[in-house]
Amino acid sequence: MTKKILRVNMKTLETKFEDFPEKYAALGGRGLTSTIVSDEVPPTCNPLGPHNKLIFAPGIVTGTKAPSSGRISVGCKSPLTGGIKEANAGTKLAQMLGRMQIAAIIIEDKNEGDDYYTLKVTQDSAELMNANKWVNRGLYEVYKEIFDEFGEHVGIAGVGIAAEMLAANSGVSFNDMEGLPSRYAGRGGVGAVMASKGLKFMVVDETGAPGVTLADEEVFKQGTKKLAKSLATHDVTKPHGALNSYGTSVLVNIINEARGLPQCNFQRGQSEDSAKVSGEAKAEAVKERGGTRPHACHPGCIMQCSEVWTDKQGKNPVGVLEYESVWALGPNCGIYDLDIIGELNRACNNLGMDTIEAGNTIAVAMDGGFLEFGDGQRALELMEEIKNKTPLGRILANGTEFTGKAFGVTRIPVVKHQALPAYDPRAIKGIGVTYATSPMGADHTAGYAIATEIMGVGGEADPLDTSKAELSRNLQAATAVVDTAGYCLFTAFAVLDIPEGLEGMVESVNGVLGSNLTVDDIGTIGMSILKTERDFNKAAGFTKEDDRLPEFLREEKSSPSGEVFDVPDEELDKVFAE
Amino acid sequence: MTKKILRVNMKTLETKFEDFPEKYAALGGRGLTSTIVSDEVPPTCNPLGPHNKLIFAPGIVTGTKAPSSGRISVGCKSPLTGGIKEANAGTKLAQMLGRMQIAAIIIEDKNEGDDYYTLKVTQDSAELMNANKWVNRGLYEVYKEIFDEFGEHVGIAGVGIAAEMLAANSGVSFNDMEGLPSRYAGRGGVGAVMASKGLKFMVVDETGAPGVTLADEEVFKQGTKKLAKSLATHDVTKPHGALNSYGTSVLVNIINEARGLPQCNFQRGQSEDSAKVSGEAKAEAVKERGGTRPHACHPGCIMQCSEVWTDKQGKNPVGVLEYESVWALGPNCGIYDLDIIGELNRACNNLGMDTIEAGNTIAVAMDGGFLEFGDGQRALELMEEIKNKTPLGRILANGTEFTGKAFGVTRIPVVKHQALPAYDPRAIKGIGVTYATSPMGADHTAGYAIATEIMGVGGEADPLDTSKAELSRNLQAATAVVDTAGYCLFTAFAVLDIPEGLEGMVESVNGVLGSNLTVDDIGTIGMSILKTERDFNKAAGFTKEDDRLPEFLREEKSSPSGEVFDVPDEELDKVFAE
Repeated sequence: MTKKILRVNMKTLETKFEDFPEKYAALGGRGLTSTIVSDEVPPTCNPLGPHNKLIFAPGIVTGTKAPSSGRISVGCKSPLTGGIKEANAGTKLAQMLGRMQIAAIIIEDKNEGDDYYTLKVTQDSAELMNANKWVNRGLYEVYKEIFDEFGEHVGIAGVGIAAEMLAANSGVSFNDMEGLPSRYAGRGGVGAVMASKGLKFMVVDETGAPGVTLADEEVFKQGTKKLAKSLATHDVTKPHGALNSYGTSVLVNIINEARGLPQCNFQRGQSEDSAKVSGEAKAEAVKERGGTRPHACHPGCIMQCSEVWTDKQGKNPVGVLEYESVWALGPNCGIYDLDIIGELNRACNNLGMDTIEAGNTIAVAMDGGFLEFGDGQRALELMEEIKNKTPLGRILANGTEFTGKAFGVTRIPVVKHQALPAYDPRAIKGIGVTYATSPMGADHTAGYAIATEIMGVGGEADPLDTSKAELSRNLQAATAVVDTAGYCLFTAFAVLDIPEGLEGMVESVNGVLGSNLTVDDIGTIGMSILKTERDFNKAAGFTKEDDRLPEFLREEKSSPSGEVFDVPDEELDKVFAE
Repeated sequence: MTKKILRVNMKTLETKFEDFPEKYAALGGRGLTSTIVSDEVPPTCNPLGPHNKLIFAPGIVTGTKAPSSGRISVGCKSPLTGGIKEANAGTKLAQMLGRMQIAAIIIEDKNEGDDYYTLKVTQDSAELMNANKWVNRGLYEVYKEIFDEFGEHVGIAGVGIAAEMLAANSGVSFNDMEGLPSRYAGRGGVGAVMASKGLKFMVVDETGAPGVTLADEEVFKQGTKKLAKSLATHDVTKPHGALNSYGTSVLVNIINEARGLPQCNFQRGQSEDSAKVSGEAKAEAVKERGGTRPHACHPGCIMQCSEVWTDKQGKNPVGVLEYESVWALGPNCGIYDLDIIGELNRACNNLGMDTIEAGNTIAVAMDGGFLEFGDGQRALELMEEIKNKTPLGRILANGTEFTGKAFGVTRIPVVKHQALPAYDPRAIKGIGVTYATSPMGADHTAGYAIATEIMGVGGEADPLDTSKAELSRNLQAATAVVDTAGYCLFTAFAVLDIPEGLEGMVESVNGVLGSNLTVDDIGTIGMSILKTERDFNKAAGFTKEDDRLPEFLREEKSSPSGEVFDVPDEELDKVFAE
């Protein structure tokens, strides 16, 4: 085992490389961050105190030539959910760490002074340097300065103004391929954990990296070839396919049609205005104004679902406008203007915030009457409040539930204190089962039932059927494995439908690890990771009552579906029943 | 059974008197509110939604001539703790309900419009009338108007501006004997529950009340005589004794001496400045400026620990300044000026807020650097922010933990999200065991170990001894019974030391109910009430991890004691072990 772990103590400012423990040999990405959190973080600790740890880990195949595998997991105890958290992003930095054979970076303890630090990681060294000049500033500007200072070739991870307030809506931002701070391990307040330790940025320079060691190059090549072929042929993932042509926002029209695109803080599930912010409309606009589309979030991606959104003059590039962001900052706030949504998304990136949480936050403030649904200008002003760290900004930066409480709102769409993504669980029940039961809080990526319920991927399922425990469980387990291997979740569209693709994915992992895993092992491995996560949550005080959707979604009918979330508690409890 | 229950549906605005169910015959006060909450409120419901209920219940002996028994319990699911809540107050209205034979008033469902209501209760009727003219106004002024409108003889319960925001720090206020809104069922956000339903005030007119039926007048008289004698002879409760002479603030010097009076958000446990705000100093000031002291909170109290605090000119009467309020708004904020504390307390009363929560809230804001410790003028300005319902005011009105999170503070002194009272659990461990394990959240009144640990009442115990499960359990059980009977908790000082007093208390209950309870039954009855409460919490998702003090109190030494809270988790779990 030539891999290593970098351990950084923010109290003593000491850094050291350690051997990668044999017991972690088969782990990477989420499997590794969750296991280290489970092993080293007391479940009842204060998430913003010295006992929490923040762990960065590239996936098992990340850094190889495996397609669409440039993912990095960020793990810790979440200050938003109070449970274990893994958030991941696609970014070149992930691949650099893989090639440097750094299996994980563990940030521990916390700095007791008022200074912020940048951690510079090279192949042989890790050094903390003062970062105070970048405090209280927007990340677009700061990332430029970091590239100027450290060179265009580095990878950056960083936290923004929201995290400086230790606010629960604060993500860890990574640079995209244009150097923009637009790739996010967004959810659960992982940014606040990083900032709480006094760490503001991490800069990675892979010069001299040996590359990922392949235990069996033949098997690896064979596997990646199969996987690449499946990605290149599936309708969702292929060149000029759905994701490549329109990005994730291809879902806007589809989910709206399915009556599951929440409008105005989940008051309705459909609006004819939604088409104005669809993936098709956005692709057209990108083309007109000279933005970039398609675009990869990291080198080696076949799907290239990303883009660079700009203003009408083709200026002020934002980075990608993902479906979730467009929905959260758009229809869910009654806003149907891509330029306003783009500006809001830019503000989130600039401040270091998760767009899903931010959009839901604005929506509950609207629901509480603090501003009108549809008032994009006022929503943009709210972002300035956060930037200025005003009391109002502090409310908003702490997320949806916090803002709902501040404004006396009882319709607060959260599970485990984390805001719901872009699918109304009343009209599409399986995704609601995932929201309710994922150890991460409401998270669509944790077990993307939409694939089967709406897109017919991996089989078919009636969105209104309430028997979704098995579907959600299987998807949650598979996802945990994909997040551990280091593949983009979107590879699942292909491999769920094309058996050879799935085989190839497993073979690529075997090629790196020298293991003999088969497709049949995926469920077992995934459930084992989920058990580690759920055990942590249980020790932190979670019970089955935390695996529930909020009252209003169970009692208030969505329109036009006329549905409530009526999956019985017993069905929810079956997802992880012994 | 001639007692009745008044049930008020705030959605339909219907009111009806119901027979008092036989199964509740032996219950009153806390025992009754907790049992009704357990029977009628779904544990997982949204505390501010239609399924929560707010229950008012006078104690079993309340309304009789039993001394110091004018207590009313207010119960519901708490929006602050998320668990069951009983908060109680001493006020004439409690006695009125007892004499009217109204065992409980149950407020249910919620009004869907924007109107607020006043519930007027007479012997034979209950009527809801519009209360909008009293919205958005301070309670001192409003209570005067209510007395003008309904007569000086009525009793008032009401909620203020904090509750209108559905803020978690909002109590239910009752009038004192001068008509001031200064008697509080303060803790746990019971005010927000009342406001969430659209109920702003309750006005009780006891004209024609039949009085409490005594099943056995002889036993009752014999019991109350014994009890009265014990109260009149014990050093703490007798005329010219500690409580009568100095009020509850007699504790300031005592607890400061014991190194357990938290200063500046629990940074230290002692300050020589504390003497400036002692009970002795306050009594002297009341005398000088022509306030009233001693003073009863309701007719028939022997102890008369209360007072009417005024400004230096003898104007602007506040009502009582309790020890807890003086500490929370004073030393815990680094404020050692009784006039500032009096103004802050007046603001809390005016806005309808719990002083313990409010003082801790200001202290954590100070700890977060938002204002300086000791800056009383700025603290008063913060109260104006709440009055004006600004974003900052909304943060503060939501209490200590909320404010701590908003300002990025990790030293947040709460248990079950409720702020700690005026005793540093590091220097006085038994009260910490009660804070941790009470189903109510951090609450000194739930099992007042200070009596034994510091005052030598009911035996003696070394404050630093960590074996306090049994002491806390016994006190929590006894307290549940006292709160059910309707006695002021301070009667416990006498009856814990004088066996005849305790006998008398039990006999007084037997005299009302016609029961044959003995002193030996107290533990069993108390534990049964506590089990009902803990079962509710368990069903709401609480686990033993909720029975813990915050991390900083377990790790950061208090000074000058040099102590941390080191009661082992196993000892905490022993309090309510099967």
